[in-house]
Amino acid sequence: MYNPENVKTSPDFPIPDTMRAWVLGDPDQLTLATKPVPVPKKAEVLVRIDAVAICATDLEIIHHGPPAMIQGGLPYNKNFTPGHEYMGTVAALGPGVDEYKIGERVTVEIHAGCGQCKRCREGMYTSCHNYGLNYGDVDKGHRANGFTTDGGFAEYAVNSINTLVRVSDEMSDEEATLVVTAGTAMYGLTELGGLVAGESVVVTGPGPIGLLGVAVAKALGANPVILTGTRDNRLQIGLELGADYVINAKNEDPVAAVRKLNGGKGVDYVVECSGAPDAVNEAARMVNRGGRICLAAFPGKPVEVDIAYLVRNNIYVFGIRGEGKSATHRAEAFMAQKRFDATKVHTHTFALEDLPTALRYARERIEDAIKVVVKTHGHAAITSVAAE
Amino acid sequence: MYNPENVKTSPDFPIPDTMRAWVLGDPDQLTLATKPVPVPKKAEVLVRIDAVAICATDLEIIHHGPPAMIQGGLPYNKNFTPGHEYMGTVAALGPGVDEYKIGERVTVEIHAGCGQCKRCREGMYTSCHNYGLNYGDVDKGHRANGFTTDGGFAEYAVNSINTLVRVSDEMSDEEATLVVTAGTAMYGLTELGGLVAGESVVVTGPGPIGLLGVAVAKALGANPVILTGTRDNRLQIGLELGADYVINAKNEDPVAAVRKLNGGKGVDYVVECSGAPDAVNEAARMVNRGGRICLAAFPGKPVEVDIAYLVRNNIYVFGIRGEGKSATHRAEAFMAQKRFDATKVHTHTFALEDLPTALRYARERIEDAIKVVVKTHGHAAITSVAAE
Amino acid sequence: MYNPENVKTSPDFPIPDTMRAWVLGDPDQLTLATKPVPVPKKAEVLVRIDAVAICATDLEIIHHGPPAMIQGGLPYNKNFTPGHEYMGTVAALGPGVDEYKIGERVTVEIHAGCGQCKRCREGMYTSCHNYGLNYGDVDKGHRANGFTTDGGFAEYAVNSINTLVRVSDEMSDEEATLVVTAGTAMYGLTELGGLVAGESVVVTGPGPIGLLGVAVAKALGANPVILTGTRDNRLQIGLELGADYVINAKNEDPVAAVRKLNGGKGVDYVVECSGAPDAVNEAARMVNRGGRICLAAFPGKPVEVDIAYLVRNNIYVFGIRGEGKSATHRAEAFMAQKRFDATKVHTHTFALEDLPTALRYARERIEDAIKVVVKTHGHAAITSVAAE
Amino acid sequence: MYNPENVKTSPDFPIPDTMRAWVLGDPDQLTLATKPVPVPKKAEVLVRIDAVAICATDLEIIHHGPPAMIQGGLPYNKNFTPGHEYMGTVAALGPGVDEYKIGERVTVEIHAGCGQCKRCREGMYTSCHNYGLNYGDVDKGHRANGFTTDGGFAEYAVNSINTLVRVSDEMSDEEATLVVTAGTAMYGLTELGGLVAGESVVVTGPGPIGLLGVAVAKALGANPVILTGTRDNRLQIGLELGADYVINAKNEDPVAAVRKLNGGKGVDYVVECSGAPDAVNEAARMVNRGGRICLAAFPGKPVEVDIAYLVRNNIYVFGIRGEGKSATHRAEAFMAQKRFDATKVHTHTFALEDLPTALRYARERIEDAIKVVVKTHGHAAITSVAAE
Repeated sequence: MYNPENVKTSPDFPIPDTMRAWVLGDPDQLTLATKPVPVPKKAEVLVRIDAVAICATDLEIIHHGPPAMIQGGLPYNKNFTPGHEYMGTVAALGPGVDEYKIGERVTVEIHAGCGQCKRCREGMYTSCHNYGLNYGDVDKGHRANGFTTDGGFAEYAVNSINTLVRVSDEMSDEEATLVVTAGTAMYGLTELGGLVAGESVVVTGPGPIGLLGVAVAKALGANPVILTGTRDNRLQIGLELGADYVINAKNEDPVAAVRKLNGGKGVDYVVECSGAPDAVNEAARMVNRGGRICLAAFPGKPVEVDIAYLVRNNIYVFGIRGEGKSATHRAEAFMAQKRFDATKVHTHTFALEDLPTALRYARERIEDAIKVVVKTHGHAAITSVAAE
Repeated sequence: MYNPENVKTSPDFPIPDTMRAWVLGDPDQLTLATKPVPVPKKAEVLVRIDAVAICATDLEIIHHGPPAMIQGGLPYNKNFTPGHEYMGTVAALGPGVDEYKIGERVTVEIHAGCGQCKRCREGMYTSCHNYGLNYGDVDKGHRANGFTTDGGFAEYAVNSINTLVRVSDEMSDEEATLVVTAGTAMYGLTELGGLVAGESVVVTGPGPIGLLGVAVAKALGANPVILTGTRDNRLQIGLELGADYVINAKNEDPVAAVRKLNGGKGVDYVVECSGAPDAVNEAARMVNRGGRICLAAFPGKPVEVDIAYLVRNNIYVFGIRGEGKSATHRAEAFMAQKRFDATKVHTHTFALEDLPTALRYARERIEDAIKVVVKTHGHAAITSVAAE
Repeated sequence: MYNPENVKTSPDFPIPDTMRAWVLGDPDQLTLATKPVPVPKKAEVLVRIDAVAICATDLEIIHHGPPAMIQGGLPYNKNFTPGHEYMGTVAALGPGVDEYKIGERVTVEIHAGCGQCKRCREGMYTSCHNYGLNYGDVDKGHRANGFTTDGGFAEYAVNSINTLVRVSDEMSDEEATLVVTAGTAMYGLTELGGLVAGESVVVTGPGPIGLLGVAVAKALGANPVILTGTRDNRLQIGLELGADYVINAKNEDPVAAVRKLNGGKGVDYVVECSGAPDAVNEAARMVNRGGRICLAAFPGKPVEVDIAYLVRNNIYVFGIRGEGKSATHRAEAFMAQKRFDATKVHTHTFALEDLPTALRYARERIEDAIKVVVKTHGHAAITSVAAE
Repeated sequence: MYNPENVKTSPDFPIPDTMRAWVLGDPDQLTLATKPVPVPKKAEVLVRIDAVAICATDLEIIHHGPPAMIQGGLPYNKNFTPGHEYMGTVAALGPGVDEYKIGERVTVEIHAGCGQCKRCREGMYTSCHNYGLNYGDVDKGHRANGFTTDGGFAEYAVNSINTLVRVSDEMSDEEATLVVTAGTAMYGLTELGGLVAGESVVVTGPGPIGLLGVAVAKALGANPVILTGTRDNRLQIGLELGADYVINAKNEDPVAAVRKLNGGKGVDYVVECSGAPDAVNEAARMVNRGGRICLAAFPGKPVEVDIAYLVRNNIYVFGIRGEGKSATHRAEAFMAQKRFDATKVHTHTFALEDLPTALRYARERIEDAIKVVVKTHGHAAITSVAAE
């Protein structure tokens, strides 16, 4: 039985010594393996993973390798477990942890900063200057589970208590996996100023972050909230999540359409979630003078940008990586208060052993898949939500 | 004699009815004309212009026409007087003005916002949503002298009291014309956070804004301050103004050189003043994770930008147009306290009637011209400072 | 007929030359008089007042005289009309105004800053340094209708367009008079940081601002929101407006009760709306280390404050006077989206000629009066809402 | 020899096993004892203390006991070593530390937050919610050396690397002990907004923080900087450190004097460093509408405060405890650049064994003592600087 030194466990919550976990060998080599259940250290807990959602970044990591491998220099852990949008139950407590109890339901954010660098000391832990420094001899305490440390396509994971968000009992496991996505959208709006009630917001790109970006912007009182995209079914979900207007860029010029909705002046904020090649230029022409753009997505290659337009119009551009500044807590608060129904972006559910199928659904958008969730405990045959 | 209704004048400061002023007909058609001395309204004063510096933007406006003409839609004032970096003496007071006295020396910032729009109400008057709306029937009170309203290549101009900065008696007329340039650099640092003492700053591009950017960053306690450029004589002035290091991009890769100076991590802030095609990408690679870039210059055409790098590294990009948020007052305070010698960027002086020659010196950088100043009052034969 | 030079009127909206208006002679000398309908200037409109709510400050102004009189120095206008929480219909446009159309419904915020002082240029127009300078010869353009310029206990008033907030057609006149009260609560939360989703907030004092403070905090996602007070009926309304907990300070120690609800650590924010003598000390002990207190009310006399506690616990205290930083627009957005029902604090309605009775209801809290509204147009016999 | 497991030492920097350290038994029971040299953990170093300054808070702690004792609940460590304003040399590195090298000179700030609580995650580590939780079984990692953990009246101390500030070689040991005092003043100005160039600042109270507050405000370009106090010799030092004006409150009413210097409007910022009973009310009347007050000192007992004045004038009050938000780094940068001479507040030096005498000089202000420094290594007979 799992009983590491200095770790608090409970007889009511027995933990095996080993667990099933998907591991990534070379890129695209994903196998279901047996691993020891990991051990939490100071300010860490062991989380039993109950559900994990698939993010587009997971697909990239599995296909190209994790950042440690891509960026080079750092040794690449061939036993690495990907997956980062998970939730579960606190199963064991590292030394000194009394902030959480065994048995509590939690969802997670990704980034646990080192706590010592300039950015961590400013509260910008997602920009930790010791990002990825947790291999071999160099361990600065940074963790980004599923990116640089073992993640959630497994039965258990270790998490810094800084990454935990308590989950309301009324929230389903599946919904709880979406908190970090909503938290990313919330972080974008936080960086844009946050006080968006009555302000005009455009969200470009109806992927999971974009759709929940619509929901969060509306929850914060933004008005109008305009969503642009190219697929009507996605735009329809945007309407259900609170968009006041949707614009199908296949049918009309989105810049012209946005400006028309706003008396020609442009909106106050754009949250760019499409990663389209011309997205920054279009966003710049959608905002008004002094407006702000959050980049939550990006094109794969460098693209032409009209810098002069940004400068002449005093436009602010914020690149964000993930969820920062406790925005997940703000997002969870809105979800717990039922301000929007994040499950509208959840389309399919699979069992842990079916991860390859789940990944294929996500990658190929089979049956219009948006968020595909993998359940890791206590669930037999699980099929598509849409099919139910 | 000049004596408009409701305007306060002084017998000690007689004002003629007409003045000499350069006017721009079609682009590149600049003629010295006689115009009526303009009349200040509520919250405005008449300024007797004593000196005016030439900015690269003046060259553009004279060559391409002012923004009103370029942006189209707005009627183009064929009697327009360009020039915006001027200083002078308060000559008459509009109705109700008691904030200034006749005879006080002042320098100016450009933008007087409308005071009613969303941005003006936020204090972002340089992003006024009624920019340029002061032609014909539509007058929202916005003024940007030398851009959308008559400017400083003349003997007198009307200024909103919001654009005035009192000038210390110890400051020469020439130095006072540089306050707005230092104020633009200060605004860049203000938007970047302002608390830069002990932080690392790169300034790219040793033009007037870049050089005074070095001076202002150092006055604020930044350390180190690194200047990049391609001309050694300009970099030398940077050293004199406080740069700790200069990098000649002709001799070494500036990104590698900056990162080497900073232990590989990159600096906290970049103030981009070069407008070079690859400047944004280089700036992004000079800053560290979570760092900030102020764009105070821009290339003439759209350029390739690596958006993914900005997003993955949580980089903030601030486009600024001019001097905003009272930064000229902060700059003037440092200059009055002799924290740096802005006159190091002043190289030549001409008389008002010699404006075409002055413009040529500025445009062609004759005799290494940086800032060329035109004196409008009480000065006979004036020649190059360098030649003195 | 009303037809001043340079003012735009409409045949569809005829305006009389004179109007009924209550005027304040010496303190407590309020008489219904006939006054000329006032004339809007540049960036101003004439508003036909449809409804006006009574604020505790109105009672003070009527009893003690307006600030100009109290603070001395400034001449006291014996023809002054009090009243500041009003809404109505745009009736005529000052020169150049095209931001509003005749016939649009609007509600108002109080403060129109001068636009020239340091604070106005920062966007802090409620702290205008030319506050009250609009008497006799000195006119800096500042207006605070009902405080320093003629207000809303009348049929018409002139408003700077900066003070207007468009009102949704679905919002009743009575509800619209409450926007500025909700806006004051919103401003308090704005100054406290604004990103309160999931954060803990205590509101002390269930007057109109406190009750709408509960509603606004909850709309912004705060959790929990705790209301303290001494009257159970008021606390009950707090529950209806979104309070998660209410504490009757007559029954239990509010500091102990708050800390108990929060695991002993104290809450993140306190919005103090009681003006009780010990309120600041209690608020300080309710917040956690590094917490923030907004003072939206105050005791009539100096009170003992434990400064050492504020310093040792790094507590921030924000005094606010009214509604600032466009918070009324944010409040109106939430109200238009039906996020809370502000009319729960509206208890009574009277006709304009019955203002003395309305004031008595408000002052003496007759029939548990909270917000008493006076309707100025098109309403015959109006009685208590509670009585309906 | 000192050689703990997992700690990196250097043969060039031998460390004894035991050290001399002053320990506080019951209040006022200070004895020079022998203690084991402490052992640094992860992200910590061992500092050889070279010099330590005496702060008024040290006198309080020695007289009343440390916060843990005063606040109750927490066990009081009878072997506690006080002293917190020290500097020294890095002597050994805890596990994994590579940010510092053995032999580097450093000075310290006090607060090392836990890194997990809400405030630490925001960057407000001086308001750590686990303050003092490092006794007995509860260890959340918070340290405040000299307050809750062993401090600097000793030969060695353990410091979190978060509390270290590298010291320029040109800076003397004595000057380096003053960095944290200047850092406290800097933090006050940081919280007030930081962009104070050209803004008016009053510092009340010419103690060490006040005097260095003058120096820091001036270094940041504030103008004018006004210092109030009651002792002419202290005010004289204020002038030497950059005050533009000094006001002796014994000779004139300081509020009237300040307002007169500012044309009656009041200043933009007050840094309150006197702790006088009426200081908050006076500060409130010194600032202008919308102004800000930093409380860096406090009276021993609750005092009468005119809350109404704070609210009506939209005044912001910031209580600060110590140095926060990396302000020590900003202060050190200015000191390294020789922007002001902090040693003007250093008056006396003693050897470690003479701590009781040093404390007496500080407490009784013998020979006008301001900052009294104790040197702990390599210094024989040391006497008063003033006497040299």
